[in-house]
Amino acid sequence: MPLTDATHDPERRSWVDSANAPDSDFPIQNLPWGVFSAGDGPRRVGVAIGEMIVDVTALEADGVLEPAPGEQVFARGILNPFMALTPTVWTETRARLADLLDAATGDRALPLVAQSDARMHLPVFVRSFTDFYASKEHATNVGSMFRDPDNALMPNWLHIPIGYNGRASTVVVSGTEITRPLGQLKGPDDDAPRLGPSAKLDIELELGALVGTATRMGQPLTTAQAEAAIFGYVLLNDWSARDIQVWEYQPLGPFQSKAFATSISPWIVTRDALAPFRHPTPPRDLPLLPYLEEATANNFDIHLEIDLAAEGCAPVTVARTNARYLYYSAAQQLTHHALSGCAMEVGDLLGSGTISGPAPDSLGSLLELTWNGRDPIALPDGQERRFLEDGDTVTLRGWCEGAYRIGFGTCSGTIRPAPVPPA
Amino acid sequence: MPLTDATHDPERRSWVDSANAPDSDFPIQNLPWGVFSAGDGPRRVGVAIGEMIVDVTALEADGVLEPAPGEQVFARGILNPFMALTPTVWTETRARLADLLDAATGDRALPLVAQSDARMHLPVFVRSFTDFYASKEHATNVGSMFRDPDNALMPNWLHIPIGYNGRASTVVVSGTEITRPLGQLKGPDDDAPRLGPSAKLDIELELGALVGTATRMGQPLTTAQAEAAIFGYVLLNDWSARDIQVWEYQPLGPFQSKAFATSISPWIVTRDALAPFRHPTPPRDLPLLPYLEEATANNFDIHLEIDLAAEGCAPVTVARTNARYLYYSAAQQLTHHALSGCAMEVGDLLGSGTISGPAPDSLGSLLELTWNGRDPIALPDGQERRFLEDGDTVTLRGWCEGAYRIGFGTCSGTIRPAPVPPA
Repeated sequence: MPLTDATHDPERRSWVDSANAPDSDFPIQNLPWGVFSAGDGPRRVGVAIGEMIVDVTALEADGVLEPAPGEQVFARGILNPFMALTPTVWTETRARLADLLDAATGDRALPLVAQSDARMHLPVFVRSFTDFYASKEHATNVGSMFRDPDNALMPNWLHIPIGYNGRASTVVVSGTEITRPLGQLKGPDDDAPRLGPSAKLDIELELGALVGTATRMGQPLTTAQAEAAIFGYVLLNDWSARDIQVWEYQPLGPFQSKAFATSISPWIVTRDALAPFRHPTPPRDLPLLPYLEEATANNFDIHLEIDLAAEGCAPVTVARTNARYLYYSAAQQLTHHALSGCAMEVGDLLGSGTISGPAPDSLGSLLELTWNGRDPIALPDGQERRFLEDGDTVTLRGWCEGAYRIGFGTCSGTIRPAPVPPA
Repeated sequence: MPLTDATHDPERRSWVDSANAPDSDFPIQNLPWGVFSAGDGPRRVGVAIGEMIVDVTALEADGVLEPAPGEQVFARGILNPFMALTPTVWTETRARLADLLDAATGDRALPLVAQSDARMHLPVFVRSFTDFYASKEHATNVGSMFRDPDNALMPNWLHIPIGYNGRASTVVVSGTEITRPLGQLKGPDDDAPRLGPSAKLDIELELGALVGTATRMGQPLTTAQAEAAIFGYVLLNDWSARDIQVWEYQPLGPFQSKAFATSISPWIVTRDALAPFRHPTPPRDLPLLPYLEEATANNFDIHLEIDLAAEGCAPVTVARTNARYLYYSAAQQLTHHALSGCAMEVGDLLGSGTISGPAPDSLGSLLELTWNGRDPIALPDGQERRFLEDGDTVTLRGWCEGAYRIGFGTCSGTIRPAPVPPA
């Protein structure tokens, strides 16, 4: 989509007044996709505009939108059938919605629901969840803490967008409560592990990319094909239990330390809406193999923040970072993912890995912010935090800022106590 | 199910003659579940009996079977809706099918299709695939080769059923051709990696357990609950690219080295059919935490073999092993998987990990059989194999042998050349 496209016109305003507020995450230039319900009603596909939601399922049923003639792709209240259409249809549908919501050309009779009256759901059926490790600062910090500060990055890290398969069944929408996991715990001086609730429950601030174009088994992708296959992006919190992780992860990687929950923000911000905020990846420390080279700037300049609130207390912002720090773009991650012939499916979710930057407060996990608990964070009411306590609420926020603001909304979760162990 | 149940009666015979042959994998005591199509017809659920398939979708449509009154759980031609019913329904349906197929009491007008006229499909929608590492012999062999022969087992291995999340999108049914994967390859003396086809393509002989009972996020299981949640078992070949694996796997585990394909046998042998062949896990080297202790024998005495055939040549059996060698049962694997609160879903597939035993030919991978290529296998026509060549066909076989035979059929795949690398 060229940036001269009318959907990027900074002068454009909506007849939905709240979309024209300068601090709105959802101006007419954004139009992110989600799934909502109102009252006891069924799940419906919607697009956020200011403080409202346009009921896209209704627009399709009424014939106002027709992305797939003869089909009702929004009827099931999940975005996968729409995502499975072509990138051209994604772009055309977005342009049509912008016209309908435009203050000059729009249709003020569109079906709207207030976001405050809606409940948000997982916007896609996440077929598979893959988590990458694409921030050099994060990988260096973790390597320094747990392995060797002088050789913090593994030799493969500067060549491969390192990733692992995550657990799709526990990808949940923002607002879902997070139960503290049980696991095997063993301190360095313990003779044997014990069973108990994680005492090092952590967050990982990530960007999630949602795949909209499937590949066949055995079919590699170029970076250009991979970039075009990404439907949009969400905020992602890869909740992590560091004490479970350190005991379990060798030699096959993180498993139950990550499997209990991954939260995503409810609104998928499209690749089209993010186009004005493209940013190149950082300079390479070593040349990449040609299959990973990119002809376009595939990172994004997205401001990211982590808020932490103890139960009953006001939130405090504990980290401020940016998605442009990522050493590997989502397109590079997806290219590497498909290289082996791994089939990609509509609704696959790729986490970027924790996004950390160079500054002491630009770190995307408590592990790094407190240096594995050595330097606790002071909360305003006098409490300290090394890792998360029951009752804590974590909220991620993200937005691009330029001639207008493209926001992601929030991704939040509150920690509930661990269950009774199985007898 | 008590072993006095009529479905385990060794004297019982079927009116389908081929089921009464002593070497049949599918006597009336087995009745494994699969999904087939005939000609251009739609996918249908079936049960194997001798050389035939009973068309269970037709039996339900005709009202002969009614596992979920008012619903047609077999109509979609996939087993997940039936598996989502209760273990009691699984058992009752099996008993009803045995009565219908019994030489004395049966109904010779049942709809049958010859297996030779049917095409088999993936029997379940595999929601998530998890691969474990539950053979002590295999973990010891791999640790000896790649780490330290004196400390081959990681300290966690005797406490945790170690596993990792695999890739569900490339779980395919036996007979699907396997494309040699591309990947990053780097020898120990190379300065930098290069892109190329894997030269160390391997097999992993495993047993796969299919989960039939879902759990809620945050809900741990006891070993007894986990054991009851397993619908049945399949043969599983976890195709592996050892040269990709050794370069990519630190610190987050295997990724593209395993993501390109996993083959399973088409017939799901039920937990009920396997009941007479239960076997305890081997003696513990160290006590387990109580949550992993089992009150029942949850391993199975299943003979397993690997056949390897070069293109145009007769197959040779390269390994003979047994599922009873597994140090951790599938019930223990599933219990650990759910411990963190990870939600399990109907159709989740748990691979046991490569099954190796104590004898030199009881090893479940070429990596071990050839000791990473040091000791090639001689094929009858004079060829040698260190790893798989294009055109090779690998076939896994498995069966229990007692008063009767409970067979798994075969799980096979033929290697096709790697694609052209992305430019």
